[in-house]
Amino acid sequence: MKARQIHESSGQRTFAVILDAGDEVMAALEEFAAKEGISAAQVSAIGAFSAATLAFWDKHARKYLEIPVTEQVEVLSMLGDVSVTADGKPKIHLHAVLGRPDASTLGGHLMKGTAEPTLEVLVTESPAHLRRVFDPDKGLPLIRL
Amino acid sequence: MKARQIHESSGQRTFAVILDAGDEVMAALEEFAAKEGISAAQVSAIGAFSAATLAFWDKHARKYLEIPVTEQVEVLSMLGDVSVTADGKPKIHLHAVLGRPDASTLGGHLMKGTAEPTLEVLVTESPAHLRRVFDPDKGLPLIRL
Amino acid sequence: MKARQIHESSGQRTFAVILDAGDEVMAALEEFAAKEGISAAQVSAIGAFSAATLAFWDKHARKYLEIPVTEQVEVLSMLGDVSVTADGKPKIHLHAVLGRPDASTLGGHLMKGTAEPTLEVLVTESPAHLRRVFDPDKGLPLIRL
Repeated sequence: MKARQIHESSGQRTFAVILDAGDEVMAALEEFAAKEGISAAQVSAIGAFSAATLAFWDKHARKYLEIPVTEQVEVLSMLGDVSVTADGKPKIHLHAVLGRPDASTLGGHLMKGTAEPTLEVLVTESPAHLRRVFDPDKGLPLIRL
Repeated sequence: MKARQIHESSGQRTFAVILDAGDEVMAALEEFAAKEGISAAQVSAIGAFSAATLAFWDKHARKYLEIPVTEQVEVLSMLGDVSVTADGKPKIHLHAVLGRPDASTLGGHLMKGTAEPTLEVLVTESPAHLRRVFDPDKGLPLIRL
Repeated sequence: MKARQIHESSGQRTFAVILDAGDEVMAALEEFAAKEGISAAQVSAIGAFSAATLAFWDKHARKYLEIPVTEQVEVLSMLGDVSVTADGKPKIHLHAVLGRPDASTLGGHLMKGTAEPTLEVLVTESPAHLRRVFDPDKGLPLIRL
């Protein structure tokens, strides 16, 4: 992973974060956000994965059903945000749509994704905090404004 | 729905708009845009819906074919814009890709979507007007620069 | 194609680029980026295509497998970036998810797409260079920070 700030305006920074082959995206972006002290940001990316784990939130069971993806796929869209948990750690929340060789698609909440050959991520920070708090009713950490 | 401005720079405001369970997204964003006086903005969101109505534009019949979605789905991407109609009202134009428990996807022009448990929307306003005008040839309101 | 700058802040310009029916998106955005001297930007769009060519990167064969799309489709998401090649020309890199009348989806690396009736593109420039360099190992031009 390499990251570079490509813009700054009134405290809003935009970064290009380029993942190398083999980089796992959730770990890479958590490390990047912690290092840069990002507490609120928008994330958008395209590229490709050699493997990934998608998930679907089962609201009755209150848990994620995991769907492993064990083939090379295009990352058609990867969108989401950076917020912070109660203990001040950055929390990355991403959803992805993946493309197969026949142009069929798969998608879900992104648990893991390994870049191959690259993932081109744009992170637009806001000089604010988006605070994520565990909601006991829903069983999930939700953003609280 | 709760909304908070998380950035401002040279007249460009960025808002986080968080929908609660049961909020309908088109109504919520129209209300938000009208209240904030937004006449041009970019919209990006992820989250989940308990139900939605997608649509496909039939260019020969000049009407939208509606596709009801009657199950819980992940909102894998929801992208679009805010413009204003001739009478000055904000017009929300969104397309969505939705994910099912097996990671298969559905997508279309978004007519309606009910958040469950949440939808995390980022709205980036521009201090300009994007004017949408009915095109009699196409049968649709299109942005005119 | 019509383009208009809708924001400027500390050297970062945001443009609305509206494609007319029949405009091919890759050619239109290359022309637009060259004219405006854009060397780093984020691209996001929705709209519809009358036809398109998607592609999947075969990492073993080191070439794109093309998938022609010969029907009217909604452009559910079109995301990517603008960078510059070694000879200073803008390079547009886009991935798209397309929607069919039954809400099924197709997606891939975008080679070509013909707008019908329109494509609404937002281009957010950064006052930096994203340089794309051919990687002999991967067989692809990758962004080098």
